[in-house]
Amino acid sequence: MISSRLTGGFLYERNILNMDPKRLEEQLGFALEIDKEKNIFRQTYISDMIRKENDAEHAWHMAVMAYLLKEYSNENIDIARTMIMCLIHDIVEIDAGDTFAYDDKGKETQKEREEKAADRIFGLLPDDQRDELRAIFEEFEAQETPEARFARAMDNLQPLMLNDSNNGYSWKEHGVRAEQAMKRHEGTKAGSEILYRKCVELIDKNKEAGNLL
Amino acid sequence: MISSRLTGGFLYERNILNMDPKRLEEQLGFALEIDKEKNIFRQTYISDMIRKENDAEHAWHMAVMAYLLKEYSNENIDIARTMIMCLIHDIVEIDAGDTFAYDDKGKETQKEREEKAADRIFGLLPDDQRDELRAIFEEFEAQETPEARFARAMDNLQPLMLNDSNNGYSWKEHGVRAEQAMKRHEGTKAGSEILYRKCVELIDKNKEAGNLL
Repeated sequence: MISSRLTGGFLYERNILNMDPKRLEEQLGFALEIDKEKNIFRQTYISDMIRKENDAEHAWHMAVMAYLLKEYSNENIDIARTMIMCLIHDIVEIDAGDTFAYDDKGKETQKEREEKAADRIFGLLPDDQRDELRAIFEEFEAQETPEARFARAMDNLQPLMLNDSNNGYSWKEHGVRAEQAMKRHEGTKAGSEILYRKCVELIDKNKEAGNLL
Repeated sequence: MISSRLTGGFLYERNILNMDPKRLEEQLGFALEIDKEKNIFRQTYISDMIRKENDAEHAWHMAVMAYLLKEYSNENIDIARTMIMCLIHDIVEIDAGDTFAYDDKGKETQKEREEKAADRIFGLLPDDQRDELRAIFEEFEAQETPEARFARAMDNLQPLMLNDSNNGYSWKEHGVRAEQAMKRHEGTKAGSEILYRKCVELIDKNKEAGNLL
């Protein structure tokens, strides 16, 4: 590794000297724990309708879309922060489960369940990273920054895109009404007016096709 | 949306004026196409061994780990570039299929199959983004930048972590030898000496336990 030592020697030496085995164990413990997100299934079907998608797939899709569509954000965003926000925003569902966007009863207890889950799961990390990731998660929930608003727009656009691709398979399963879908996308508008207009167009199209009630 | 207009008015106005519906259609076409990555299954099992993981899940896991473990990179890295590299590095497998890390025969045709896939899939994007994402994909393949080397370290560490968690379920299925695993991790060393040492420790442990031949 002569070349990497030459170009990055300082960082490498600093890392080796400060290396804390317990810190790395905690980080890898968290990394392994979040593997469980692959078993948390959402109500949205992937485009070929074979099965529902899980939280890890949804988060991956959102982060790629955030990168691709960042030019449509209403406000300038830090794309690295937006991507990690997309990637971790549903980690709490490992304990709290997925709450369907149109499950009003589930939403009553959602906040409490998710805060408890955040305590346990982010608590696996070293203190500095626990605080950092918890703050990113809370920032997403609070919807008070451009990054949080654009991440929410992705959280809404991604399942709408899949539902549109498979003739509203999940909407029909749950009898979702067009006005419910429209209400959800008020959050999309706060992140991107342009993408919101696209969402309204897709909702109208699916209402006319009978995919939304 | 008065608040977002106030803080991000310039960007919003510029976006609306320059809005190109064909561009957005191409971007969403690509976003929908890559949904197929959720159906490309790898040889690694998720930690509970119920099933193999797919490329989208693997990419999500790698990107989160890149963010968490960036302090161990041999060289300073641009984390946004590293994350998007992790997220898209396997997109070509939608057409080319997954080539198992220890499939020497498959590796002979891998490059050709993946280049053809890259032409088609990245070609769905507007020209500027086609070129940008293709360059990020080629950068990962070439392994000549710190970001590419650290992304490769994640590509190696993530399945090793899962294999270690489930007593080498996939290794046993394929009769993988410890020296094969060790050889693969030469790439890990170029990205992170510290994580490489951890990988060697895990390989040794699993060799002793009989999970690796």
